[in-house]
Amino acid sequence: MIDFQLDGMLGFTQGGRKLSEELDVTRPRVAAAVERLARGGEMLGWAGLPLDEKTAVEIAVWVSSLPRSVTSAVVLGIGGSSLGPKALYTACHYPMPLLDGWRPDGARRLYFLDNSDPETVAAVLGHLDIASTLFFVVTKSGATAETASQLMIAWERARAALGERAAGSFVFVTDPEKGDLRALARELKVRAFPLPPDVGGRFSVLSPVGLLPAAVAGISPVALLRGAAAMRARCLDTAVERNPAALLGAGAYLLDTVFGRKVHVLMPYADRLADVGAWFVQLWAESLGKRRGNAGVGPTPVDARGATDQHSVLQLFKEGPPDKFVMFVDVRARRALEIPAVFGAYDSFAYLGGHEVGELIRSERIGTQRSLALAGTPTVTIELEEVTPGRVAALLYLLEAATAIAGFLYGVNPFDQPGVEESKRFTCALMGRPGYERYREAAGAGAPAGGPTIRVDC
Amino acid sequence: MIDFQLDGMLGFTQGGRKLSEELDVTRPRVAAAVERLARGGEMLGWAGLPLDEKTAVEIAVWVSSLPRSVTSAVVLGIGGSSLGPKALYTACHYPMPLLDGWRPDGARRLYFLDNSDPETVAAVLGHLDIASTLFFVVTKSGATAETASQLMIAWERARAALGERAAGSFVFVTDPEKGDLRALARELKVRAFPLPPDVGGRFSVLSPVGLLPAAVAGISPVALLRGAAAMRARCLDTAVERNPAALLGAGAYLLDTVFGRKVHVLMPYADRLADVGAWFVQLWAESLGKRRGNAGVGPTPVDARGATDQHSVLQLFKEGPPDKFVMFVDVRARRALEIPAVFGAYDSFAYLGGHEVGELIRSERIGTQRSLALAGTPTVTIELEEVTPGRVAALLYLLEAATAIAGFLYGVNPFDQPGVEESKRFTCALMGRPGYERYREAAGAGAPAGGPTIRVDC
Repeated sequence: MIDFQLDGMLGFTQGGRKLSEELDVTRPRVAAAVERLARGGEMLGWAGLPLDEKTAVEIAVWVSSLPRSVTSAVVLGIGGSSLGPKALYTACHYPMPLLDGWRPDGARRLYFLDNSDPETVAAVLGHLDIASTLFFVVTKSGATAETASQLMIAWERARAALGERAAGSFVFVTDPEKGDLRALARELKVRAFPLPPDVGGRFSVLSPVGLLPAAVAGISPVALLRGAAAMRARCLDTAVERNPAALLGAGAYLLDTVFGRKVHVLMPYADRLADVGAWFVQLWAESLGKRRGNAGVGPTPVDARGATDQHSVLQLFKEGPPDKFVMFVDVRARRALEIPAVFGAYDSFAYLGGHEVGELIRSERIGTQRSLALAGTPTVTIELEEVTPGRVAALLYLLEAATAIAGFLYGVNPFDQPGVEESKRFTCALMGRPGYERYREAAGAGAPAGGPTIRVDC
Repeated sequence: MIDFQLDGMLGFTQGGRKLSEELDVTRPRVAAAVERLARGGEMLGWAGLPLDEKTAVEIAVWVSSLPRSVTSAVVLGIGGSSLGPKALYTACHYPMPLLDGWRPDGARRLYFLDNSDPETVAAVLGHLDIASTLFFVVTKSGATAETASQLMIAWERARAALGERAAGSFVFVTDPEKGDLRALARELKVRAFPLPPDVGGRFSVLSPVGLLPAAVAGISPVALLRGAAAMRARCLDTAVERNPAALLGAGAYLLDTVFGRKVHVLMPYADRLADVGAWFVQLWAESLGKRRGNAGVGPTPVDARGATDQHSVLQLFKEGPPDKFVMFVDVRARRALEIPAVFGAYDSFAYLGGHEVGELIRSERIGTQRSLALAGTPTVTIELEEVTPGRVAALLYLLEAATAIAGFLYGVNPFDQPGVEESKRFTCALMGRPGYERYREAAGAGAPAGGPTIRVDC
């Protein structure tokens, strides 16, 4: 069960304007956006993924055939290829990602190589026993530089350790037909799962990109899809007032464009949901941050973690510029952990004794929400009854659908990312990739360091 | 050595206005802000911490007396009590925080309990052997609810395991005179180091708050202070054009207030510097996000991680609203890790073979900076020759001094945080703390859930 509390948003008023009235005016456009989502079409393949239990079962069967000697898996992927599986893993298997020694019921441990930092790549690959490790290589285009370079390093090491058997340690996820990784899979005889062409990377968490690593770690892909399917049914309802994604997407759009609330904060009050925040930031920023005509549009997403960041960004949210919108995520059922009644002679301790730690974090969320509401900040709260794979997947689906609906309202394409291509071309030019010579000068190759630089000897 | 490259900021032009000219106009105010910082005074104690080698030596001596049986330490603290030591630990001891099995030269492992999430508290305390663990309890006021509750739980467990010897497993860092934690230290006979009253929590990383955990983990507190001292000398120079903190603080202030660049991004291209990003977000948000007269001021800080987040927020930074300012942090000397020349028949792989992974991440940073510059985004780059304790401390000091100077220019008090108090009062009211009854109603206690809620069964 997920409760979506809307009073802090629907009741929002600023400068004499009410969000609920703006929503009434926009309602026909919101309903049209929902219809467009329900109809499907180009790059909307992700919206139907919760119904694809065939793929989930295929993955579950394949995972059940893995030898017990495989105890770890590494995801080589970046952006959408990493953030989704990481969010699922952390949310469903916490505290396993926190404590290496902790491994319940023989669940496999996942590692994520999501950067081209040589220290991390060397550390993780040096730490693992290649013979008991599975490597997922995930890139939709089959050409991502960070992932390609990691594959090359991992492949050479696996060949050295395992010889001809190396191919069995790799699994690729890429386009079903196109790209160099697909061709390489054929040549090397590596098992390759398809990422459907009409599913973008940041919307791929319920495709094999997310389901495969989850299943290897012991999280049921069918349970993930069923939770998301329950949410999907609600997110395709054209009765806007019953549709959580429509209300969230339209509310966020109106808060930005009508009320100047340009900073959108997702603040889960649970350490196990911290990586959902990072996943959301990519989804929201890369989908909505677009050029429209001659102007740039799109809110700036920020992920915060409650209660921790009450001791950080809350000061800015409460007293800084009135440009924030805060989405709380809370969890109703918490692990039991009582605060013992010690130090009763001290006021700062006495009131805590006998309470559950879970009561404290819940009180902190409510207290912060009230304090922000009194400062005139719009908020919503998404409350999970308890964290289960199905509910995490439902939460992610809700945010995906809200993103698509917001994108339609902004009048941008929420499924492309033209703004990241130039940086990639410049990187290829600087790395000497044939065909990219003409970008070398623009990329700054060979240019003098130039301009003022301050050097500090330390 | 740290190089601070300014051309992307000083050469910035928008709407016919040049940042360098605005800086010329503001220069007398900037110089006055530096003088105020150099003069010292209320809450400016942090600015002199790099010179306090006496405390660093005292800490080093104390740590050298710790028994070898102590192999782990837990920091119980939140906000400034946790973010600083965590940033030092991750930066200086990477990949130790990543890989539990990895423990170089007998260095002690640190854990951070920085939230009131019962799952994390139970997991970490359940994972550790109490007899070989040291507990740092860090709260300036001595009354922080999250930290107090964790201390109560840890104390009871230590008493059960160790009896009368439990006090030896605890070290407190708090006000030298005031507060319940100081009184408790006297009663329990727990060793307590002072956090000077004129040093605020988010500026405390070079006080015992940061130095003690660092020293216990094997990072030299004297090396930290010496690096910071080298940077300090440059940050107190009233010749603005030679002062990196003055240029960064003034540049950020002008970019926000004159050019509408309200989102300030710190983007280190090194996994080991990721926690510096979280530390910076607190510093910038809580110091500059303030009410001034009837209006809220202050930029929104965002931490991103290169190259990873080129596959996330870069789309928004490149094509979204022109309200971003990006501060890159790069590292010149990287761990050697060559990409082997395999898969040469494929264009997506061939150009990478034979290159260092470090070349790739550097090319990505340069390519991204060029791409953002072409989109008209102001940038700076702070480049560390190599990551050492002294240079990390110097980087943190630079950012602290820039924060203070920016705060003086905004005309706010960068050292208070009045906006977080109301939320704390509400939490106390909801937890039934005596004396807080009058806040119960405002905190929403007993109020009907009210308002529209959407429930999704999943």
